Amino acid sequence: MKCVEIATTTGPDGLRLAERPMPTVGPRQVLVRVHAASINYRDAMILSGGHARGVDLPRIPLSDGAGEIIEVGSEVTRVKKGDRVCGSFFQRWIDGPVFPEMQNHALGGTAEGMLTEYALLEGDGVVTFPDHLSYAEAATLPCAGLTAWHGLIEAGGLRAGETALLLGTGGVSVFGLQFARAAGANAIITSSSDAKLERAKALGATGTVNYATNPKWAETVVSLTGGRGVDAILDVAGGDSTRGALTAVRHGGFIGIIGGRSGPGGELDRSFILRKGINVRGINVGSRAMFEAMNRAIATAKLKPQIYKTFAMADSVAAYKDFLTGKQFGKVVITI
Amino acid sequence: MKCVEIATTTGPDGLRLAERPMPTVGPRQVLVRVHAASINYRDAMILSGGHARGVDLPRIPLSDGAGEIIEVGSEVTRVKKGDRVCGSFFQRWIDGPVFPEMQNHALGGTAEGMLTEYALLEGDGVVTFPDHLSYAEAATLPCAGLTAWHGLIEAGGLRAGETALLLGTGGVSVFGLQFARAAGANAIITSSSDAKLERAKALGATGTVNYATNPKWAETVVSLTGGRGVDAILDVAGGDSTRGALTAVRHGGFIGIIGGRSGPGGELDRSFILRKGINVRGINVGSRAMFEAMNRAIATAKLKPQIYKTFAMADSVAAYKDFLTGKQFGKVVITI
Amino acid sequence: MKCVEIATTTGPDGLRLAERPMPTVGPRQVLVRVHAASINYRDAMILSGGHARGVDLPRIPLSDGAGEIIEVGSEVTRVKKGDRVCGSFFQRWIDGPVFPEMQNHALGGTAEGMLTEYALLEGDGVVTFPDHLSYAEAATLPCAGLTAWHGLIEAGGLRAGETALLLGTGGVSVFGLQFARAAGANAIITSSSDAKLERAKALGATGTVNYATNPKWAETVVSLTGGRGVDAILDVAGGDSTRGALTAVRHGGFIGIIGGRSGPGGELDRSFILRKGINVRGINVGSRAMFEAMNRAIATAKLKPQIYKTFAMADSVAAYKDFLTGKQFGKVVITI
Amino acid sequence: MKCVEIATTTGPDGLRLAERPMPTVGPRQVLVRVHAASINYRDAMILSGGHARGVDLPRIPLSDGAGEIIEVGSEVTRVKKGDRVCGSFFQRWIDGPVFPEMQNHALGGTAEGMLTEYALLEGDGVVTFPDHLSYAEAATLPCAGLTAWHGLIEAGGLRAGETALLLGTGGVSVFGLQFARAAGANAIITSSSDAKLERAKALGATGTVNYATNPKWAETVVSLTGGRGVDAILDVAGGDSTRGALTAVRHGGFIGIIGGRSGPGGELDRSFILRKGINVRGINVGSRAMFEAMNRAIATAKLKPQIYKTFAMADSVAAYKDFLTGKQFGKVVITI
Repeated sequence: MKCVEIATTTGPDGLRLAERPMPTVGPRQVLVRVHAASINYRDAMILSGGHARGVDLPRIPLSDGAGEIIEVGSEVTRVKKGDRVCGSFFQRWIDGPVFPEMQNHALGGTAEGMLTEYALLEGDGVVTFPDHLSYAEAATLPCAGLTAWHGLIEAGGLRAGETALLLGTGGVSVFGLQFARAAGANAIITSSSDAKLERAKALGATGTVNYATNPKWAETVVSLTGGRGVDAILDVAGGDSTRGALTAVRHGGFIGIIGGRSGPGGELDRSFILRKGINVRGINVGSRAMFEAMNRAIATAKLKPQIYKTFAMADSVAAYKDFLTGKQFGKVVITI
Repeated sequence: MKCVEIATTTGPDGLRLAERPMPTVGPRQVLVRVHAASINYRDAMILSGGHARGVDLPRIPLSDGAGEIIEVGSEVTRVKKGDRVCGSFFQRWIDGPVFPEMQNHALGGTAEGMLTEYALLEGDGVVTFPDHLSYAEAATLPCAGLTAWHGLIEAGGLRAGETALLLGTGGVSVFGLQFARAAGANAIITSSSDAKLERAKALGATGTVNYATNPKWAETVVSLTGGRGVDAILDVAGGDSTRGALTAVRHGGFIGIIGGRSGPGGELDRSFILRKGINVRGINVGSRAMFEAMNRAIATAKLKPQIYKTFAMADSVAAYKDFLTGKQFGKVVITI
Repeated sequence: MKCVEIATTTGPDGLRLAERPMPTVGPRQVLVRVHAASINYRDAMILSGGHARGVDLPRIPLSDGAGEIIEVGSEVTRVKKGDRVCGSFFQRWIDGPVFPEMQNHALGGTAEGMLTEYALLEGDGVVTFPDHLSYAEAATLPCAGLTAWHGLIEAGGLRAGETALLLGTGGVSVFGLQFARAAGANAIITSSSDAKLERAKALGATGTVNYATNPKWAETVVSLTGGRGVDAILDVAGGDSTRGALTAVRHGGFIGIIGGRSGPGGELDRSFILRKGINVRGINVGSRAMFEAMNRAIATAKLKPQIYKTFAMADSVAAYKDFLTGKQFGKVVITI
Repeated sequence: MKCVEIATTTGPDGLRLAERPMPTVGPRQVLVRVHAASINYRDAMILSGGHARGVDLPRIPLSDGAGEIIEVGSEVTRVKKGDRVCGSFFQRWIDGPVFPEMQNHALGGTAEGMLTEYALLEGDGVVTFPDHLSYAEAATLPCAGLTAWHGLIEAGGLRAGETALLLGTGGVSVFGLQFARAAGANAIITSSSDAKLERAKALGATGTVNYATNPKWAETVVSLTGGRGVDAILDVAGGDSTRGALTAVRHGGFIGIIGGRSGPGGELDRSFILRKGINVRGINVGSRAMFEAMNRAIATAKLKPQIYKTFAMADSVAAYKDFLTGKQFGKVVITI
């Protein structure tokens, strides 16, 4: 089979096309003919050596992909041949709260990824996706989609009538906007680009703020909530974003901490958390159970993931480079 | 001021028009010029002597009403003169879980109700309502609306992508349908009338079943969920409705027990609850905090309560009698 | 290896001693040298044909057992050779809420049980137990212990200062008493035997009521709580126990529905649930994550399970018969 | 009546003895003959001008006090003359989550405090305390006790078998130690004084670490949990304490942010929160419902608050000065 491998963790040029033998399917595994994959910041960080622990080279990259099951192991009963599925980011995190060992089987990191013609996955590590989605659209869900769902809905408890704040228009934030609206909540989104804010409005944003032209953007967000503050925020960036989140969140509100383009770093001012009784939680993608819940919501709302550009597997280097420009609204997809 | 009183608990003919002196506003109270009120089964039960404890005659009936604040007590700061408000069913249940004493200040029961020109309410016992609602529409919210919200959203935890089941098209069930849809969930509703099922579809029902013509209605509901079962159910009736709810609910799903036309009675089969790990909870209207959360959801979705017919205060007896026919889809309102 | 098998589901005399070949350990499995097993009502029901679905004969009985790991599969990392472990009742229920498929791998039911010299278990389906426990003591935990923990602590949310009610002195109730006390809660327990109530007091019961001599036992329980009512109840029996539970529980309190000696049947009066806003939930043993949490509590409190009598494997029939007398306080154990 | 007032916010010497007229009891108020009060850091901060907003001078200081009800307003039914009660820190926070307006009626801050012979309190703003406590002991509960309860038990969800970490031996931390043990959890505590660690052991601490002599104290805490990490931590100080808390907490664990001697400041490293999926929440004393729940736990465990020294009202300045030395283990009490 053909695949792409990380040969060296030196950025996009460290990728190479490769041939590997077809995998043998164990009793609890499934073999998936991958049709599409998509890129996240975490993939870019791995490619430049940012998450070295457990990433043995050569490694097939990308956590996010979708395909068709073409073979199931003898003990697998929850899915069947022909099912259209995504891989679950953490292959062994089925349900319940975060646990330390989940990192040990992370697609495209400690385990082989989805930028391949055929992927060998856990029978318990795949989820079927809604009928109205293409493979390319489904390939955007496992990391960016699930992170947004976990942060806003599962951890943040966002409910109809509440308000979410999304910082920037990266993949997680755009999904966050869509999920908030699908759940009957308001969604305020920020960007440095008025053009992107217009696209967000078209997706249902109930409020938009340009943080580049409005240094008091967090106070503007509060005013858009009638002074109450925001119920749930995905803090994807640290720094000024984090400070704004602490200002914009309501008393007793929620801030989900997410790794993004600017890395996991930065700090939270303790006095804000104390004074406003804020809830803060670190969000690491999510479990298979969360993925299934998200897919039910996507199916009900007939929600369509936003695809920015599509590349062929042979052009994977170009796909990563395009991703790294940061200009996209929506996801960069590679078809296989 | 003019009001309607329950003179004798002998049904609608026990009502009478009356004059009372204007109330004096205490430091934590507000005076509301009532513009509309609406009728619930609980009001009909009180009028026929069904809830005698603490209902001292003559009593102004009806828990549900909306009006304008015309005077506020000296210590009241959370609302102001001119605010358009509903009364909160349990005047002293602000937040947190159910507590036994809440019955002691229930509008139209242990406390004076809303079928009056002027109502003296707790400053902490009113909530402003969304701008897009008329007084008549807002007057339908305090009991039927809040019961549905509390049952499905607060206690049932219904989320986007899940499925609610509403049994019949009474006031609570129609609100349940609207709230489920507003929260991004599917909503299946039953009725003995195909015409009412058509009206439910127009309000967004994603599945409808006629229980009169389909004795296997609960199994049909399960098939509408793809075999998974329903996530949250409002059981408004007991008897066959309760048995159907136990059949239709998914493993680990939720059934909210609500008092309705057929009274609070009936039984739940213990073996269903055990085998499927079902959650069952009794739902008693709700707190002021729940009311405020519901109103935010109504505002975001621009949801419109369904009004069946509107009567003048002088025709209150006719309004109750019309209500008791059980033919309505939506609420019976009395304007004042 | 030697084991006991259910040859026919005709009660204790349907058991037989048998020889089976040693199992081969798959990559995600462990082989356990079983040292002790214990009996629950569910085992007795299976033996008399009460839970036929998926119980293929001959079947090794008993869900509950403890032993030493003597071999681990190639992919197992969370336990190691030499670990002292219990089997987890539902071999594939790791974490999160109840799910329908969990019944498919239930020890001593749909899967082979623990009344055997060697048991082949999932690597994810065993838990280490506290150092201060013997194999015989640990063998009492998987069903009765975990059911009580799940019901009172995980589902019932019992906290320090609250009050639990245990109905009768069966295995689940005695564990419930111990867990309630270990969690800083009060524990009231009922029995028809003053001698058993004395034993319960010695284990820490803060209140005891003889339901045989006191027909108003539920009202007495309420008076023992100062009139507030009980926070969490394990309803193990249906019938009069269920009625008493509905009377004794506080407003907004919790009743866990558990299968017991008298079977899963009986009914719950809907009007109690409604009026008092009661939470009712069906409790099916529990997940591995709950088992691990329970074991941490047992270790912290140095809690000792109560063993009534110990039998040898060759005397398994006598053990079941002794169990069925219902005279025991604590668990019937079979050593292997 | 006699009371102490804050004349100027210049530290302890800004206090003065004063005479005020006896208050008149409104319909929803109670008059309490105060017998004891106690000092918290927040009181010291107010006295030195640290929380100026809403603190109108002269103000009677101290949030924490206990006494006997000697008169009840006409509408008060939940307490009666002769009840021994504490005042609730936030007089109008009855139940439910944090809300911004709660600061408006905070004893000894925006409202008159407890360092007075007679205190006029809300009928809904007092709680009876357990029989086994003296007035002096009960006077330590409203701020320090409730903050610890709210942080560990209500927000942190600490359960039997889990482990709490208390940083230092200030008032909140000592209560945290006692509540953790009462709830069946382990409790590890740090101090710079071996003598104080010995006192903590006598109160039940299951692990102690001297952070002054052990710069790797946080890693030592982790090793005391067998490598799993701590389930719930009260972070009372910022700085090195916060860094240690982030190191010591388990994956998915809880850190409650509390204001203490070193003020509300400091920062939390975002990357720890993200990587370990940590929950962080700001803790502001608590509601009356939490206070009542805490008192039930105190009653069940017969827990005794730790009193360091007792002063007479006339020696209030000396009491504050003694408090500010930071040498105490337990609370500084003033009897009235």
